[in-house]
Amino acid sequence: MRASEVAAAVGGTLEGEDVDITACAGLEEARKGDLSFCKDPKHVALVEGTLASAVLLPPDWSRGAPCSVIRVADPDHACMAAAKLLAAPEPKREPGIHPTALVDPSAKIGAGVHIGPFTVVEKGVVIGDRAVVEAQVFVGEGCRIGFGTHIYPQVTLREGTIVGADCILHCGVRLGGDGYGFVNMRREDGSISIEKIPQLGIVEIGDGVEIGSNTTVDRARIGRTYIGPMTKIDNLVQIGHNVKIKGYSGLIAQSGVAGSTEIGYGCLIWAQAGISGHIKIADGVQVGPQAGVPQSLDGTQKYVIGSPAMSLRDVAAISLAPKMIQKLRLEIKAIKEALAAGRHG
Amino acid sequence: MRASEVAAAVGGTLEGEDVDITACAGLEEARKGDLSFCKDPKHVALVEGTLASAVLLPPDWSRGAPCSVIRVADPDHACMAAAKLLAAPEPKREPGIHPTALVDPSAKIGAGVHIGPFTVVEKGVVIGDRAVVEAQVFVGEGCRIGFGTHIYPQVTLREGTIVGADCILHCGVRLGGDGYGFVNMRREDGSISIEKIPQLGIVEIGDGVEIGSNTTVDRARIGRTYIGPMTKIDNLVQIGHNVKIKGYSGLIAQSGVAGSTEIGYGCLIWAQAGISGHIKIADGVQVGPQAGVPQSLDGTQKYVIGSPAMSLRDVAAISLAPKMIQKLRLEIKAIKEALAAGRHG
Amino acid sequence: MRASEVAAAVGGTLEGEDVDITACAGLEEARKGDLSFCKDPKHVALVEGTLASAVLLPPDWSRGAPCSVIRVADPDHACMAAAKLLAAPEPKREPGIHPTALVDPSAKIGAGVHIGPFTVVEKGVVIGDRAVVEAQVFVGEGCRIGFGTHIYPQVTLREGTIVGADCILHCGVRLGGDGYGFVNMRREDGSISIEKIPQLGIVEIGDGVEIGSNTTVDRARIGRTYIGPMTKIDNLVQIGHNVKIKGYSGLIAQSGVAGSTEIGYGCLIWAQAGISGHIKIADGVQVGPQAGVPQSLDGTQKYVIGSPAMSLRDVAAISLAPKMIQKLRLEIKAIKEALAAGRHG
Repeated sequence: MRASEVAAAVGGTLEGEDVDITACAGLEEARKGDLSFCKDPKHVALVEGTLASAVLLPPDWSRGAPCSVIRVADPDHACMAAAKLLAAPEPKREPGIHPTALVDPSAKIGAGVHIGPFTVVEKGVVIGDRAVVEAQVFVGEGCRIGFGTHIYPQVTLREGTIVGADCILHCGVRLGGDGYGFVNMRREDGSISIEKIPQLGIVEIGDGVEIGSNTTVDRARIGRTYIGPMTKIDNLVQIGHNVKIKGYSGLIAQSGVAGSTEIGYGCLIWAQAGISGHIKIADGVQVGPQAGVPQSLDGTQKYVIGSPAMSLRDVAAISLAPKMIQKLRLEIKAIKEALAAGRHG
Repeated sequence: MRASEVAAAVGGTLEGEDVDITACAGLEEARKGDLSFCKDPKHVALVEGTLASAVLLPPDWSRGAPCSVIRVADPDHACMAAAKLLAAPEPKREPGIHPTALVDPSAKIGAGVHIGPFTVVEKGVVIGDRAVVEAQVFVGEGCRIGFGTHIYPQVTLREGTIVGADCILHCGVRLGGDGYGFVNMRREDGSISIEKIPQLGIVEIGDGVEIGSNTTVDRARIGRTYIGPMTKIDNLVQIGHNVKIKGYSGLIAQSGVAGSTEIGYGCLIWAQAGISGHIKIADGVQVGPQAGVPQSLDGTQKYVIGSPAMSLRDVAAISLAPKMIQKLRLEIKAIKEALAAGRHG
Repeated sequence: MRASEVAAAVGGTLEGEDVDITACAGLEEARKGDLSFCKDPKHVALVEGTLASAVLLPPDWSRGAPCSVIRVADPDHACMAAAKLLAAPEPKREPGIHPTALVDPSAKIGAGVHIGPFTVVEKGVVIGDRAVVEAQVFVGEGCRIGFGTHIYPQVTLREGTIVGADCILHCGVRLGGDGYGFVNMRREDGSISIEKIPQLGIVEIGDGVEIGSNTTVDRARIGRTYIGPMTKIDNLVQIGHNVKIKGYSGLIAQSGVAGSTEIGYGCLIWAQAGISGHIKIADGVQVGPQAGVPQSLDGTQKYVIGSPAMSLRDVAAISLAPKMIQKLRLEIKAIKEALAAGRHG
């Protein structure tokens, strides 16, 4: 795309050479062929040092640029618009079942559904209209997938899993694996036997849920592991059996929720945080990165951090302990000296 | 299934309408069609608020329920029994090799083995009787899989991996990837070269081991990475090269064990804990959630927590530090005031 | 292989029976058929207790061994050499496209490339000479893979991903999944709408990069998520959108880097560490295991640890707080007693 075409598309004015633009990038990472943007004069040095071929700048930007310039009222917004034009369009997944896909005759496939190569759809599966199930996916017996849901390659849905409408499941998502449940039995001879507890329930995912790459959600021991509507889960997250996430919550990468825990509406669980099993997190609570929550949070504290999780204030108090101790040491030393002086005085 | 049929199956008595029951669920999550249970009178409010179609209650439960009731001596046990009846049976994997599977002619496949669609079994592989290798699995050259072992879809076994009998490998398990090993070499001209250390060993998994979804176990640099019998590993766990887990241990989700570490019999590593490399954890030690273990644990402490890991007592002492400091501050203040008063008095 | 053949290959001298050797292993884990090694006399008890069939020992080792002995100048080095001989060679991936692979006619496949069974290569893909793309891999539209790069089974490359030359991608790696980006919009009626921010960029991987099993790297929101040359990433690592890792760095298992963060040259991020988004880590900084880095690190501290990350000295001070407090308590008690005695005296 030419810079002049980009300028026209975003309602801006081109100054300088009508270069070729192939992508968008930040000022520092941009290279030849990239379009970048800046609106804040404090980043003038970044603009002057950029390797971009063109840069979107506000009308009142008085300093020069080492490349072509497109003047536009809102450079941020314009760059986002340009990025959409420049990005390779997401591959079209046309309706139809790839000839290499194995779809059981008993499966009910909606209108306009795409099923990719080497995908397995087992018996009794129901797939809603316009759903996309890409290549190399495994959809086990009796699964139900809502309309408009997009499943990327190499996802596995174990038997009985229910996925709502307009969901997105990224590559390598695992739904419905057995929950972790064993009982240690000590036999009469004293030896230990470890018995598997049957995991008889399912996973149910509400509408509008997005689940990141390689995230795992275990099937319930009994009943359902439930991820409520509009919940957005990042990569490599672990959701244990019988967890209930009410909905409209976010779980950032590598966080984990242990079995039978309930997470309220509108919660945000930051990266690498861990929530113990059999507890409740109230609506709207945020759990900070790497925090570990051993007990229910009733919402009195809206944000917890640390392991075990506590208020920001308590975390700060512990961090300050060495400094406070040093202060007290000096005070005690002064008292001792005063006493010694007093006695000798 | 009708409620009366459930009642008959669990040896209970139906009171109320003979409703349809399709699944089991907890009191709070239950909906129409669900059977729930309660034995503890303190949960009376949950029973009264449940949306279940029927609830299992003990004979002496005097309060009502908003649905049909099945009286039974042990409601917990009865619900588990009912769940087994109601759960969709796990899909049958009949003996036989799916026509789309690619099984090298040199592979030795036992009696009654199931091999699913799009699965690749390379040369020299040996699979024991009654093993199930589901769809889209990769079994590399020379792997050995014990009898009765169940491998779910999309597992990969790199060349030479040995899996014992009666194991379960959940979706996305990766066995035998290269261990992480590099040496930084500084060339004569000062530049750095990062050389890969060949990872020449294998992974060996004992009998009765279960490994959760998307867990990774690296092949040894030399010799074997070893997961001993009856070890139960949860999802998204990392086991480094040359780790030796003696057996009968549990590793909960997202925990990790670094290279060459040895874990004794009967250990329990809780979620998100990390164990450093080249150390030994004695038999029966528990490592708490999110704990980080930098040094060997000889079993003197049966439970450690925190990062770096310490006793519960030491963790508590650090948590209490701010409170103790405040107490000392007040005492010092009082002494100072007493001294000031004394001098002026 | 016979012990005598091993001895000849490593330039050593066999003493004792010419046993069969099938693998190498450490003294403690070795079994029948294994070759082990020892050079340090302090491990004499391990040598005497080993179950290995043969052991490599230095010429001046005076104590016996319960098995055959191969005398050699450098037993460590010799064992590594023997391991290379004994290890099953990595399976040969001959040039050619497996008949079950689906390669779009528009894809450009270099000379000597191997493409394994059930692999999907979409339109516009370019694969460099001698690259190996193993079984069940998904290569999305317009991806580019450099020469000599080795992609193990069940990797997914979403559309537009660029992988350099001589890279290694282990099983289950996910490149180019959508970054985690949503905006909460409150509608006029007060209800919340959670809108997905389009992720329009790509992932670009430099030359010589190795990425471990089940690791995930998200595509950029705009521009590129960039993993610079010679970076070595372990298993189950998460790299967020628009992260820039300059190169020659290591990221150990289960660590994570949040969106838009920049990591300098030659950094080492230890296991389970987490780096916040939108910060910069200076060249050569090490982040300790399980550390959490909330703010940029300018290189003043070469090693940080803890969550939030701090210097080793600060971590030690906090650990020592309870002991220091106890010391101050005793001093205060002594002062009080002295004062009380003084008053009464």
